[in-house]
Amino acid sequence: MRPNPTLADLPLRPELVGEEPYGAPQLDVPVCLNVNENPYPPSAATLTDMAEAIRAAAYHRYPDREFTRLRGQLADYLGHGLGVENVWAANGSNEVMTHVLGAFGGPGRRVLSFTPTYSMYPEYARNTHTAYVTAPRRADFTLDAELVLGAIAEHDPSVVLITTPNNPTGTTTPLAVVEEVVAGTDAIVVVDEAYQEFSRTPGATALSLLPRYGNLVVSRTMSKAFAFAGGRLGYLAAAPAVVDACRIVRLPYHLSAQTQAVASVALAHADEMLARVDDLRAARDDLVARSRELGFEVVDSDANFALVGRWADRHLAWQQLLERGVLVRETGPAGYLRVSAGTPEEMEAFLAALAAIDAPRMEQ
Amino acid sequence: MRPNPTLADLPLRPELVGEEPYGAPQLDVPVCLNVNENPYPPSAATLTDMAEAIRAAAYHRYPDREFTRLRGQLADYLGHGLGVENVWAANGSNEVMTHVLGAFGGPGRRVLSFTPTYSMYPEYARNTHTAYVTAPRRADFTLDAELVLGAIAEHDPSVVLITTPNNPTGTTTPLAVVEEVVAGTDAIVVVDEAYQEFSRTPGATALSLLPRYGNLVVSRTMSKAFAFAGGRLGYLAAAPAVVDACRIVRLPYHLSAQTQAVASVALAHADEMLARVDDLRAARDDLVARSRELGFEVVDSDANFALVGRWADRHLAWQQLLERGVLVRETGPAGYLRVSAGTPEEMEAFLAALAAIDAPRMEQ
Repeated sequence: MRPNPTLADLPLRPELVGEEPYGAPQLDVPVCLNVNENPYPPSAATLTDMAEAIRAAAYHRYPDREFTRLRGQLADYLGHGLGVENVWAANGSNEVMTHVLGAFGGPGRRVLSFTPTYSMYPEYARNTHTAYVTAPRRADFTLDAELVLGAIAEHDPSVVLITTPNNPTGTTTPLAVVEEVVAGTDAIVVVDEAYQEFSRTPGATALSLLPRYGNLVVSRTMSKAFAFAGGRLGYLAAAPAVVDACRIVRLPYHLSAQTQAVASVALAHADEMLARVDDLRAARDDLVARSRELGFEVVDSDANFALVGRWADRHLAWQQLLERGVLVRETGPAGYLRVSAGTPEEMEAFLAALAAIDAPRMEQ
Repeated sequence: MRPNPTLADLPLRPELVGEEPYGAPQLDVPVCLNVNENPYPPSAATLTDMAEAIRAAAYHRYPDREFTRLRGQLADYLGHGLGVENVWAANGSNEVMTHVLGAFGGPGRRVLSFTPTYSMYPEYARNTHTAYVTAPRRADFTLDAELVLGAIAEHDPSVVLITTPNNPTGTTTPLAVVEEVVAGTDAIVVVDEAYQEFSRTPGATALSLLPRYGNLVVSRTMSKAFAFAGGRLGYLAAAPAVVDACRIVRLPYHLSAQTQAVASVALAHADEMLARVDDLRAARDDLVARSRELGFEVVDSDANFALVGRWADRHLAWQQLLERGVLVRETGPAGYLRVSAGTPEEMEAFLAALAAIDAPRMEQ
């Protein structure tokens, strides 16, 4: 083959031809409200403990493949009587979900989600060669058991994804609905609770259903409430057999010594890391209320973001906000932009920019 | 589904039924010569710089998806005129190879390797649903172009793996053979040089062929020569289009802030991290020579390990060494055990144990 080939010269898989790497634009902007990060960094005390843990790690040796200490800490954090054997973790929920679909999805199988929902799910399906099938949420973005079980009957998936609070809408699915679904299928039901800590009812978690349903998987992340997006630590809680299945498909030593060390320190400082969640919940409620006061449509949210709109040309609105130094995400249902809850200063900057732009709105 | 299911109750993929998680036994033994680690930890100065880098990382923000700084450092380390655009990295070569097979392998395609070789390759194929096909090496574990090109003609793979120095045999494939193969196929040819720094001819690397062949991929790792097995940083060098293909299939933010920070420090200390390579090369040569003096068969090796044997029951020999506090690896061709090069003290412990055990040998 000739030197310096193009992608077209290489035996790239046909379904990847023309694909672009996934990701929001990485722009250097004063106010970043585009990827639902927690704007509050870890404390100096936490960083010092992280640095000490890094100094003590044995880099020349392979790390603990079972990362037992970290799994124990995650189980303790979750509560609900969970132990090491109920917890699995990986480099972000991206990798956790790849393990789940690697074990229970794959060629000839289907994973079902309810749109609009998290835009990474099709990537997980693509990478595991699982067919990605969807059913639409109701007009207000909620789900009920009849809708979900009907879609399961129609598509016969081996894995079902219920995202609550849902990204990008912020919509919660009531626990009673989740339970009726889990009880009504033998498919693996992944309840993706990445944003659960921000919920107005954080205690209403599917973790409480785990003792009764063997096909239930609850997915969580340290990226959001834990202010640990850079740390890339996603995890799940489930029956031990589900964890065993993940252990079969994981490639060994997937969690580095430094990730185990730093995540363990973050968990030891959980109270402090989570202290800002109340502030962010209040910021979210304020974002919703004040955007409505400005005359915008805003979707009720239990997450650390909200959909604000609706613009006839949302890209123009996105661009106008960006020109005012505020980066939000152009994603979700037509006409909306997704805005993360930030610091009070970031919220003021967003609301001032929102009031100032003149991109035309949709007629209601 | 009932609470606390077994794996048999869950919709595990059929080909995974009965599989065990991959990995050498994690035993607490005084002398660990089983996973080809570098026994020399980073210096206190390096650890201090790592700790400072960790303290400065922004955990609450997502990391740089393109890890441009780290890729630039890896390119500088490799030399050969390579730049950021030629380098890709992930959480261990495990993940790098999954990206390569995700882009160029997959359902309906084949990856070809030459046995005996690295025992993880079938796992990469399994996880990417690529068919794993093999051709045997010659009796002395070497490869020539006729053998490799013949196997390519027979199997029509989209990806070919040439491991040099080969694991677990330590055998080098001459650069002239690699060049004839790469020139003779349009398949992606991955030359896995995980152990290249330990070669008796480290400068004879396939990196020198990259300017001429667009289908060549050179795989490297920081786990071995860099004494950074815990850091989990594998990487490759190739034409920019190959890197683009990896970028399409990678899930975003796969390299955490802490991994980028710590690996970057390790690379800044490359001279020091690599200083022990000469010692380990000498330890390997000593291991080979002295095991032969004890009457054992030992395969010539360019890696930081050697195959020693041959026992009629190698598991018994493995067990007898373990009873003497020395853990080696039960892997590779029949009758052999794979022994990593270690510190002088570790080598003395191994050779004393080797002389002391009485597991019966194969007849030569």
